[in-house]
Order: sequence, then C-alpha cells, then structure tokens
Amino acid sequence: MRNILIKMKYDGSNYHGWQIQSNAVTVQETFQNALQSIIGELPEIKGCSRTDAGVHANMYCLNFHTEHKIPCMRLIYALNSRLPRDIAVFQAFDMPEDFHARYSCKGKEYIYKIWNSRIREPFLEGRALHYWYDMDIESMQKACEYIKGTHDFTSFCTVDKSREIGDFHRTVTELDVVREGSLVTVKIQADGFLYNMVRIIVGTLLNVSEGKFKPSDMNDIINALDRTKAGAKVPAHGLYLNKVIY
Amino acid sequence: MRNILIKMKYDGSNYHGWQIQSNAVTVQETFQNALQSIIGELPEIKGCSRTDAGVHANMYCLNFHTEHKIPCMRLIYALNSRLPRDIAVFQAFDMPEDFHARYSCKGKEYIYKIWNSRIREPFLEGRALHYWYDMDIESMQKACEYIKGTHDFTSFCTVDKSREIGDFHRTVTELDVVREGSLVTVKIQADGFLYNMVRIIVGTLLNVSEGKFKPSDMNDIINALDRTKAGAKVPAHGLYLNKVIY
Repeated sequence: MRNILIKMKYDGSNYHGWQIQSNAVTVQETFQNALQSIIGELPEIKGCSRTDAGVHANMYCLNFHTEHKIPCMRLIYALNSRLPRDIAVFQAFDMPEDFHARYSCKGKEYIYKIWNSRIREPFLEGRALHYWYDMDIESMQKACEYIKGTHDFTSFCTVDKSREIGDFHRTVTELDVVREGSLVTVKIQADGFLYNMVRIIVGTLLNVSEGKFKPSDMNDIINALDRTKAGAKVPAHGLYLNKVIY
Repeated sequence: MRNILIKMKYDGSNYHGWQIQSNAVTVQETFQNALQSIIGELPEIKGCSRTDAGVHANMYCLNFHTEHKIPCMRLIYALNSRLPRDIAVFQAFDMPEDFHARYSCKGKEYIYKIWNSRIREPFLEGRALHYWYDMDIESMQKACEYIKGTHDFTSFCTVDKSREIGDFHRTVTELDVVREGSLVTVKIQADGFLYNMVRIIVGTLLNVSEGKFKPSDMNDIINALDRTKAGAKVPAHGLYLNKVIY
C-alpha cells in the first residue's frame, strides 16, 4: 500500500478553511474531488491541521493511502490541472506506511502579515491585516522573548469544546517581528499550536505596540491561565501556515 | 483654480482598463464616482494613459481642476474610504495650473511579471503570466540591448485606428530582464509607449528565450516596420504601470 504525502499552497480567501463541512466549500473537499477524479477512489485524507476560514497556506501537508500506481510527478500535474487556480500542489512523495501528516509532525511555522500604513495596499487585500497606527517593533520583539519557550498557553487559546485538547503546554521555538518597509511580518514556530493561538499572540503583540501591555506583562498573562487576560485575536486573512516540519 | 495630481495603485483584475466606457466598469469611472461624492462636482479627469483590461498599476497618475478647498491629505483619506479595496490613492499634490497628467509626462516605466515554473503560484494568480518552459534569461538580455534606444517601433505596435499616433518613434531608455527565484520581471522605461508595445516586446523576448529568434534578429524586426515580424503579445494580467515620470 502506498502512502503519499502531498505539499500544497493555497490562497484561503475563497474557502471555509481546510476541513470538510456540509454547508461550505473547503480546501479538503476541493482537493478530494480532484484526487478522486484521478485515482478513481476516495481514500481517507489526513491533513496536517485544520485552518480557519480565510487562512492561507504557503505549505499545507496531507497524506493518503492508495494502491494506485500513478508516479508522483504525474500526480502533481494531474492534480494541478483539476484544482482551481488558488490551490497548487508543489510536491508529492511516497512515504513509509506509518507516516501521518498530523501525528508525524514535529512542528509548524506560521507567519502573520501586517500592512502598516495609513494607505492600504491593493495587492495585499485579503492577504494581510491593514493596520494604521505606528508600530513599536522593538517593544513587540521584547514581548516575544517572554512568550518563547515552554508554557501552558491557556491564556492564548480559544476554548472550543469540539476539540479535545488535554494538555495546553506548547513550546514556542521561534517568535520574531520583522519590518520590511510598510510590511510587518510576525513569524512563529512551535511544536504545536492551540486553537487560535497565533492570532491571539499577534493581537497581544499589537496591544504591546499600542502600550496597553508592557513586554514584561507577558509573564503575568501566561501565568494567569486565563484567555481574558490576553489581547483580542486578529483577523484570519493575515495568517499563513508557512512550514510543516517532519 | 487648483490643479490636483493624484497618484494611485490598483489591481486591474476587476476593471476593463482605465478609460471610461459605456458598457463596462473601469478605473476612471470608479474614481470619478468617489471624487464626485466628495467635492460635489465632476471635473474633467486627465489620466496619464489608457491601460488595457486586466492591467495593474503600481503608480497611475491623473489630474483635475477644482475650486474645492479640501486639503490634499484629507482628499487622500476621503477617496480611499470611498474607493473599492483594489484601488488605493497614495499621494495628492497641488500642481501648477498647466500641469497635465498625460502631456506633462516625460516617461513611463512598466514591469511585466512572469512566474516561470511548472507549478503555478496561487498568490500571483491574475498578477503574473504563468510560463512553464525553461527561460534563457541571458539571450533575452542580449535582445534587450538591440531594442533599447530610439527606433520606429511600428513592428511592436498594434494598429488601432481609434488612436491617432502620428510618429512611431520612441526612445527606450531602460529594458532589462531579472530573475528572482521563479519570478522573472521584465522592466522597461521609455519616453512613451505605442499601443500594446510592452506586451509585444515581452512576447518577442519570450520567442528569443524559446530560440525562435536570435537576439540580433531584433534589428531586422525593428527595421521591417511590420507588426507581423515580431512575436505575439503576452496577456494583460502580467503587466503593471510602475512609474510615471514628470
């Protein structure tokens, strides 16, 4: 039995996230339809994570098992010719039979794009948060130092009873804020992410920039284990799943 | 009488070019509606050039005369709050009364974006030509050297009887092809452009890359003064008006 790993990119603007739903178009459903039309069956698709509606991916990984003999290169082109133009498969590999896109994942990286200018950027519409006010990048970077490391991230997690999360500890291995002209990018890497964790961290970092929190307040927010202590979550459309590490 | 110069950006995907038409939405009409709702009158809008349907602008310039006293900064924000999100005004200036966005223009710069990969790029959909085949950038650059300078560009011009063009001589001051990863950008600056001139030059450069023309063939194509000797024009959606020089 082959176990095929697919890596793809997508602009999430037109999708209600990754996971299949009965009442809305999702990336998973769109991918499944393309795959089924090529291999003539519908195997179980294991995605590396759920993404929210409007979230983008520079790298999204999934795997499925099949007996079909199509070579990986041909599968890439066949999928791309059937997928809509806002989704592109860029790699396909045969993997060991026990590889699982979600459970084998050792870490993920997200980026969050902020267009920081009083003038909006038409070419980043739906692809970056438009944020008017002057940003204090240095204070945000200081706050990042407190968030990095292993913590119980309850304060940075939306409670969602449909998700079974036993342990709220995660290890943030990289967190940085970089400005290139008017584009500010927050990059975060961790062994795993709680629901809405990136969007709440970015919202809290913006509160630091606004002076509502001091960088050292991050300690208290983390220790409070209380969602209401952190900042509001930022919108989905600035968020990109950037890397999946196996 | 004030004479106001407006500089703006737009994603042209949803517009049938700049110039107002009775049967399709254009950037000019969209701009006029926003302006009229602010200053309560509809002055004659002078655009720096017509752009074709689907062409983008990193900088588009226009001017109009008005007695209205709105400060330029306030006009920028008022326009942006009324314009759709794929158009953004980024500068407004008071100019001498005889300034004209088209006739005062000393030169323009266009860029043409080519996504050169067998895998398409979802985030450049509608914003770059997707071109599969290996590109011979060096030959294209050599061909550029023949095209630069002052020539009669009849061979690189679509005949359009609705346009009165007396003289087909133009001076191309800059023409270069640059690769950054999979993204190849053709940049061209000239004192003026004939109809479809950039798109035909880029198409001809792609023919050079494909070996259909040698770089030195550019001389013969120019001297033929015959549109049929040059390459086909590339699609509009890779083209950006990039700079307008006064």
